[in-house]
Amino acid sequence: MRFFEDIEIGQRRELGSFTFTAELIKKFAAQFDPQRFHLDEEEGRKSLFGGLAASGWHVGSVCMKLVVAHSQRQAKEAAARGEPVAIWGPSPGFRELRWLVPVLAGDTISFASEVESLRSSEKRPEWGILQARNTGTNQRGELVFSILATAFVPRRSTS
Amino acid sequence: MRFFEDIEIGQRRELGSFTFTAELIKKFAAQFDPQRFHLDEEEGRKSLFGGLAASGWHVGSVCMKLVVAHSQRQAKEAAARGEPVAIWGPSPGFRELRWLVPVLAGDTISFASEVESLRSSEKRPEWGILQARNTGTNQRGELVFSILATAFVPRRSTS
Repeated sequence: MRFFEDIEIGQRRELGSFTFTAELIKKFAAQFDPQRFHLDEEEGRKSLFGGLAASGWHVGSVCMKLVVAHSQRQAKEAAARGEPVAIWGPSPGFRELRWLVPVLAGDTISFASEVESLRSSEKRPEWGILQARNTGTNQRGELVFSILATAFVPRRSTS
Repeated sequence: MRFFEDIEIGQRRELGSFTFTAELIKKFAAQFDPQRFHLDEEEGRKSLFGGLAASGWHVGSVCMKLVVAHSQRQAKEAAARGEPVAIWGPSPGFRELRWLVPVLAGDTISFASEVESLRSSEKRPEWGILQARNTGTNQRGELVFSILATAFVPRRSTS
């Protein structure tokens, strides 16, 4: 993880990719979103999706998973270089959540995050506030998922 | 599930409640959001959350789960009365996703859905488009989660 001072608007992180298999789509759906088009191939084909489709909450959760994994790799690398590690705070919110194209069984989605804005926190001077656009793109280059995420990012200690 | 013609602005559905136990919070976090404040009580206490906190994606996924379960109960009841059952389509998107107050281990969240707007679909005359505010409220009456959901709702067949 980086500190607030190290981050610039426009910086892009490639977060990695994830293949939504039929098995994983059905497993998530059975737990959290048991609608027929998320549980059964034939029902998916008959639906507006045109195939067995991942729950949007599954797509969002996988994006979160890759954001966290990427940040943990960065933290590990910083620690290995003997640098201080920035521990990011929680997200006070997300905006503009969009599922633009269905994620169907077998699709591989590549996720990325691009910094859109940076500002100071008046209430919490030890934190900066970052907005980043997190996106998912399928193997055909179609944007399938987009969300504007807000996060608290620690400032370098001045002590 | 109801048909588009049966729905009025302001209609509210109580979707049921869910208790976020420490075990369930950690299980979801391990899969999708392995940040320390979602995995460990002590790390949660030291964080801005002040306790072991559920991932926001967990809260959203549970809300989706209860929306679907409620709709399936309504469909079953309609079928038992011999009425036609409306099969809702997918959500083209959600807006104004807000996590307002942390959901901590042991919190019981009551979810509800209130219809905010209704309009026709020009591209798909067999569907109406509904916007509903889905909310979660904790046992102290605090609003913890809010999202504006859009859904395709079938019209009654005129044939």
